[in-house]
Amino acid sequence: MENSKRTVTCGELTKADVGKKVVLNGWVSRTRDLGGLIFIRLRDRYGITQVMVGDNASDEVKKIAASLKSEYCIAVEGVVAARAEKDVNKDMATGEIEVEACDIEIFTTSQELPFSIEEVRQKDGTLVVANEDLRLKYRYLDLRREPMQHNIILRSAVTFATREFLTSKGFLEIETPTFIKSTPEGARDYLVPSRVHPGKFYSLPQSPQLYKQLLMVSGFDKYFQIARCYRDEDARGDRQPEFTQIDMEMSFTNREEVLDTTEELMRHIFKKTLNYELPVHFDRISWDDAFDLYGSDKPDLRFDMKMQDAAFMADLSDFNAFKAGAANADKNIERHKRSGLKALVVKNAADKYSRKHIEALEAVAKINHAKGLAWMKVDAEGKFEGGISKFFAGKEAEICSRLGAEKNDLLLFVSDEKWQTACVALGAVRKQLGKDLNLYNPKDEFHFAWIIDFPYFAWNEEENHWETEHHMFTLPQKKYWDTLESDPGSVKGDLYDLVLNGYELASGSMRINDPALQERIFEIVGYSRERAEKAFGFLVQAFKFGAPPHGGIAPGLDRLIMLMCHEESIHEVIAFPKNNLAMSPMDECPSAVDQSQLDDLHLKCTEVEK
Amino acid sequence: MENSKRTVTCGELTKADVGKKVVLNGWVSRTRDLGGLIFIRLRDRYGITQVMVGDNASDEVKKIAASLKSEYCIAVEGVVAARAEKDVNKDMATGEIEVEACDIEIFTTSQELPFSIEEVRQKDGTLVVANEDLRLKYRYLDLRREPMQHNIILRSAVTFATREFLTSKGFLEIETPTFIKSTPEGARDYLVPSRVHPGKFYSLPQSPQLYKQLLMVSGFDKYFQIARCYRDEDARGDRQPEFTQIDMEMSFTNREEVLDTTEELMRHIFKKTLNYELPVHFDRISWDDAFDLYGSDKPDLRFDMKMQDAAFMADLSDFNAFKAGAANADKNIERHKRSGLKALVVKNAADKYSRKHIEALEAVAKINHAKGLAWMKVDAEGKFEGGISKFFAGKEAEICSRLGAEKNDLLLFVSDEKWQTACVALGAVRKQLGKDLNLYNPKDEFHFAWIIDFPYFAWNEEENHWETEHHMFTLPQKKYWDTLESDPGSVKGDLYDLVLNGYELASGSMRINDPALQERIFEIVGYSRERAEKAFGFLVQAFKFGAPPHGGIAPGLDRLIMLMCHEESIHEVIAFPKNNLAMSPMDECPSAVDQSQLDDLHLKCTEVEK
Repeated sequence: MENSKRTVTCGELTKADVGKKVVLNGWVSRTRDLGGLIFIRLRDRYGITQVMVGDNASDEVKKIAASLKSEYCIAVEGVVAARAEKDVNKDMATGEIEVEACDIEIFTTSQELPFSIEEVRQKDGTLVVANEDLRLKYRYLDLRREPMQHNIILRSAVTFATREFLTSKGFLEIETPTFIKSTPEGARDYLVPSRVHPGKFYSLPQSPQLYKQLLMVSGFDKYFQIARCYRDEDARGDRQPEFTQIDMEMSFTNREEVLDTTEELMRHIFKKTLNYELPVHFDRISWDDAFDLYGSDKPDLRFDMKMQDAAFMADLSDFNAFKAGAANADKNIERHKRSGLKALVVKNAADKYSRKHIEALEAVAKINHAKGLAWMKVDAEGKFEGGISKFFAGKEAEICSRLGAEKNDLLLFVSDEKWQTACVALGAVRKQLGKDLNLYNPKDEFHFAWIIDFPYFAWNEEENHWETEHHMFTLPQKKYWDTLESDPGSVKGDLYDLVLNGYELASGSMRINDPALQERIFEIVGYSRERAEKAFGFLVQAFKFGAPPHGGIAPGLDRLIMLMCHEESIHEVIAFPKNNLAMSPMDECPSAVDQSQLDDLHLKCTEVEK
Repeated sequence: MENSKRTVTCGELTKADVGKKVVLNGWVSRTRDLGGLIFIRLRDRYGITQVMVGDNASDEVKKIAASLKSEYCIAVEGVVAARAEKDVNKDMATGEIEVEACDIEIFTTSQELPFSIEEVRQKDGTLVVANEDLRLKYRYLDLRREPMQHNIILRSAVTFATREFLTSKGFLEIETPTFIKSTPEGARDYLVPSRVHPGKFYSLPQSPQLYKQLLMVSGFDKYFQIARCYRDEDARGDRQPEFTQIDMEMSFTNREEVLDTTEELMRHIFKKTLNYELPVHFDRISWDDAFDLYGSDKPDLRFDMKMQDAAFMADLSDFNAFKAGAANADKNIERHKRSGLKALVVKNAADKYSRKHIEALEAVAKINHAKGLAWMKVDAEGKFEGGISKFFAGKEAEICSRLGAEKNDLLLFVSDEKWQTACVALGAVRKQLGKDLNLYNPKDEFHFAWIIDFPYFAWNEEENHWETEHHMFTLPQKKYWDTLESDPGSVKGDLYDLVLNGYELASGSMRINDPALQERIFEIVGYSRERAEKAFGFLVQAFKFGAPPHGGIAPGLDRLIMLMCHEESIHEVIAFPKNNLAMSPMDECPSAVDQSQLDDLHLKCTEVEK
């Protein structure tokens, strides 16, 4: 072929192009040989075009066409032709046309594939997908599959929409260093040994937190960065050694402005990339209410089934298990003024839940540290049946009225000395019910909410001291400033989490900018001046030169894209992820290195994996 | 103050706002107390506004105003007033107004500063800048200085303009991993020890090269990423352990398209951020010509003084030093068919260069491995004088005519057995002359050019074998495919460098996509199949599944911004750079870590810095 460079992509030809001479480049998705006529599905990032090799083609070209196999990379020169009415494919953007080839050039051939690039379904319609390690080993092929193309392309669109919006609002994207000082606080750091400074190490950032706060001290006033972060955690679920966050920080601001800006950012992203309209403002739920109503600080609000306080029931019978939950008075109850006896009314579900199904729910409660899951059903006559019903015979009217229960409802209870334990356990049951019964509101595909008013301090029972729930630069809400030392347990922080469909998407706070207030916090949590100095000395120092009021937030990009793509793992939205052992089956990293590399770094391995 | 959140910035008020009540937030740049009247220069990222504390202010507010010191972070509430005609400051965007304060709130105070944030000049006009380690220690204050604010803000604008342009052209921004496999090729890798896999290491990428090529195999067809890269090199000049490049790769493309796209990108960036018009196409100079004419593969073309071949002069006298340069026939000469006797005619400079000045030029030539710098001047009568003139007495007419020399020109020569050595040495002299004589064309602030047609292989004299000049995935130009093995020295690569004002800004190439061609390259450079497999196995493997024709380029972002800001060091355009010892004086990284961290990583230090 004289010039094999494409003139059009495989996704753009329509009836309007009939008669045009074109060159297409792409991969052979499939060929069909109908004796004399050969059809080629040619694929690129933009779509699929049907190529027909027939009368226009020389014998030479027909021979090439007959030799094509899946995933050969080729160029086709041909003329756009309308398909016959009966052959039009309405499901395909280019389904009205085909290209009659006059020439074909094979750029490169392909070996047999380890798995199919095209969608393969079992007889029952289930999608056949290769196991993950095989997919990751041949990730470059896995990425050719349509769902992966979709996810990666959406990710690119989301990051651009993010930058477009934030730039239009006057935010500056500023790169912070990824070689920073290791601090022994928080999660485990990844370290990078220094060759020039023997025995010394750089650390990779768990987030740009300290540096973005320094940028506020520098006066950059609206900062963002789509930042790579690192956390050396044990492999669990969906964690990756490296992950990406949309890191933001603002000066001369307040909580309302940070929340508004984040809501507007999300609206822009969803509108621009999914054409999905989010509400102007997201729900706001206090941390107390989030646990009390949904048993989680990241509740799934796509369905509205709230937990209720059932303390009143303890007095209605001599069922002992309920007494403790209703009556206890631990530090947390005092703090939250709520009981540890929680109820869920599952509407119209009594006949759907057998004893066996309820046992499965109880297992969920127990995994979440409940002692058990009590239950009873409201039968067709309005009587209680099953489970703990015998303890409450005759009290149906009062209980149903106060809990809003009706015939055929299933009632579930967790009672625990600790309010939070009861909430979390029953909240997990609530989440399971949402899945089991598919309670999700189909009009509420993406349900955002803010969790606010977090407790600032938490009592560490083992070590017998207060510690901060979030990091130590978080601003306590102003109304508690006088009682920080005298009543730490009541202090709320100027903290906010953004949750989406049951996932924590972002965490943020207003920060302390007053060195004196910062020292009070260090003292309350028992941080010596030396320890604070060693860990955060340069930030504390910076705040002595006129630090502005500031605050920020950092939505996790991987998780956002995962939810936007309706995927269940962030692996599906990262081009080259590690597996759950923090390994890449493709390039086999991490790997052993040459002894000379270790010598250069003044290091010796004390143990070596076989 | 009831609400101290700013309503306007310090850069936006004009005469049109007179009478408005406003709140400003910012830093006290300077105060002047004129007995009763206090003037405050209030600064934020957007500009400076003059605040006047006078009759509108209560005694309380006046007292606060009198207490203000440099870099206090404050809020001011007041009314915009027009300045008297005589007080208007035309150099200041807000110079027509001042704000008459009615209230002031001090957010935070400031200690005494280690250096001034405002510009300080010596009596002779020279700018006083603190030494670099002090600036880096207090980088958050250094970044408050106007030049640093300008550079970082421009950098943000350039990265956004880059993304805006590339996205509009259909490029996808795709994040590649920064935990990759260490390969013993190229520069030294930074390593990250694995905790989970004892004795194994991740490596930080020197560039996303392999991964962007895999993305082409995956069919993403137009990729870019503003990517952090890492190279553990010895501290030298301007190197940083981490740096940023605008990484690009395209499929189904050719050199012309990559060059056009890059030119268009640069035009967009310069137009959008500096309002500077670059030409539609940049000069193209072959690698041979770049050395021959300018003695460098990154020539500074802001002035047009070309070196000339002076081989003819060897026959005009018995000056021995010229014979070798003219007559030699080393491997390089054969290859380039050019002599090692090079001349520069410096127009009208004879009277500007004393013997002492010429000695300084000779030192430059010698540092660049010349044996010496021969010279003579053309005097007012057209005779040669000084230097080597006695050897060429009587030949003035011929020499001046062939070299284009005239009265008062200075002639400089380097003669060397090796063409390239002569070129490089005299090229360095050329560069020095450009600076000494300020030869730069003021209309040519940013002079881009392409260097093309690089030699593909270089002969390694020490190890006695061929190696590739660039990396091994570079495509040899097609016309040499039949003679790769028989005549490696003549092969040109499909390589291109983008140079700007004497700096290499970007390097790129078309890549090999044919596994058979790739194996031939490995063989020519003596790479065993095992070694290639170990280092690049997964890429070689990927290419067996239909790799598209592809190529790319990667402009260095730090250097681009440095040149756009007319800075001499990339330290000036990075928010938090390391110093020349790869250290950060601010957070003191790299630093020692806890023994437990090393234990976790199964490592022991064999040597420790004191």
